[in-house]
Amino acid sequence: MRRAGLGEVDSIGHLLHEFNREFGEPAPPPSALADRLRRLLDVGDTVVLLAGDGPDGVAVLRFRLSIWSPGLECSLAELYVAPRRRGLGIGRALMDAALREATGRGADTMDIGVDEPDTVARHLYERLGFSNRVGGPDGPVMYVYEREL
Amino acid sequence: MRRAGLGEVDSIGHLLHEFNREFGEPAPPPSALADRLRRLLDVGDTVVLLAGDGPDGVAVLRFRLSIWSPGLECSLAELYVAPRRRGLGIGRALMDAALREATGRGADTMDIGVDEPDTVARHLYERLGFSNRVGGPDGPVMYVYEREL
Repeated sequence: MRRAGLGEVDSIGHLLHEFNREFGEPAPPPSALADRLRRLLDVGDTVVLLAGDGPDGVAVLRFRLSIWSPGLECSLAELYVAPRRRGLGIGRALMDAALREATGRGADTMDIGVDEPDTVARHLYERLGFSNRVGGPDGPVMYVYEREL
Repeated sequence: MRRAGLGEVDSIGHLLHEFNREFGEPAPPPSALADRLRRLLDVGDTVVLLAGDGPDGVAVLRFRLSIWSPGLECSLAELYVAPRRRGLGIGRALMDAALREATGRGADTMDIGVDEPDTVARHLYERLGFSNRVGGPDGPVMYVYEREL
């Protein structure tokens, strides 16, 4: 488990490309993703965590100033483990590292957008104390709405 | 409808404080919110739109580089209209201005987190082309998961 440096953007681009291909979503070419990751790491609002030699898994964290709390808000933008390396606890290890990284950088909240059928990820997040409900376990759910511009 | 300047952070802090009080969520004092808004406007990743003289309504937009598309991603972080000024189309006017602002700044997506019971806001977003479903109107929903750190 390590923080990715600028020298690893090609690996990150490849993993994120495979991620979107697996889920049938538009996937820019790995080189375009690598270029964008280079900018994000350079701007400094993004931390990428990599697991294993493949690398076998990736977590992308974005940070910004919060409106409602004194610290930063952290968004887990991506979490992906390569298919051949699943079931080994890599996702959990990435999440543990992500929570440590966020706390260490002064974030006081973390948010994640998750599709309803992605039950493996949802259970992982729930085991780690995340909730998609407002004000407690019986509260109403929170949705992500989005559109292209 | 106007873009708020640094001289209006006290008004914004007041509106956002009332927003969270109305929905029973933790509400930092208006002065603390004003201080945070001053920082956000100064950093430049945030645009605040104000409606009316009260001001009567506020929209807060956050911008950052996108991973999946060449432009910026825009989050509508807050949208609030004072209770005495509802039903007059101010929310819609704020959203129209928010979409113009986001497009003008080079955003190619906008996302919003919305609680399930907030049906007035949800209908407004849906009328404007936002969806909480993946891949079309019959697709699965997208949730926001979050936790404090």
